[in-house]
Amino acid sequence: MKSNAIFYHAGCSVCASAEQALAGALDPARYDVEVVDFNDAPERIAEAEAAGVVSVPAYVIDGQPFHINFGASMAAVKGEE
Amino acid sequence: MKSNAIFYHAGCSVCASAEQALAGALDPARYDVEVVDFNDAPERIAEAEAAGVVSVPAYVIDGQPFHINFGASMAAVKGEE
Repeated sequence: MKSNAIFYHAGCSVCASAEQALAGALDPARYDVEVVDFNDAPERIAEAEAAGVVSVPAYVIDGQPFHINFGASMAAVKGEE
Repeated sequence: MKSNAIFYHAGCSVCASAEQALAGALDPARYDVEVVDFNDAPERIAEAEAAGVVSVPAYVIDGQPFHINFGASMAAVKGEE
């Protein structure tokens, strides 16, 4: 069974370079990769936070959050700061 | 030509979980992945810092640094803090 990997971002420049380098980098034989841009899918914010995502860009792989560099906090993504 | 990806870590628990999830996750058809543990190879610290690595665990992919979560600063790795 393939692992589930979701790359969350918010269109920031740090996000873009991470997406370019990492979103397509995982082994397609082992990972189903989904890319979620919170600008297009703000309804996905809650699930990301529930998985432990506190900043973007971030990967959630099999439910485990991996923050990659720092583009923006989730508070900023939600317009709270 | 394959891309060059180096996963730097220092044996910390955050490093271990990131290594488990990500060091073997890249597409082997497109990436040559090397894992460097600074405990075993302190002489590699300089090259990592030259690539922009400021904390571990981190990937350097085609020369670009991607810090993954936060295990330890490079200062801590070098025993400076």
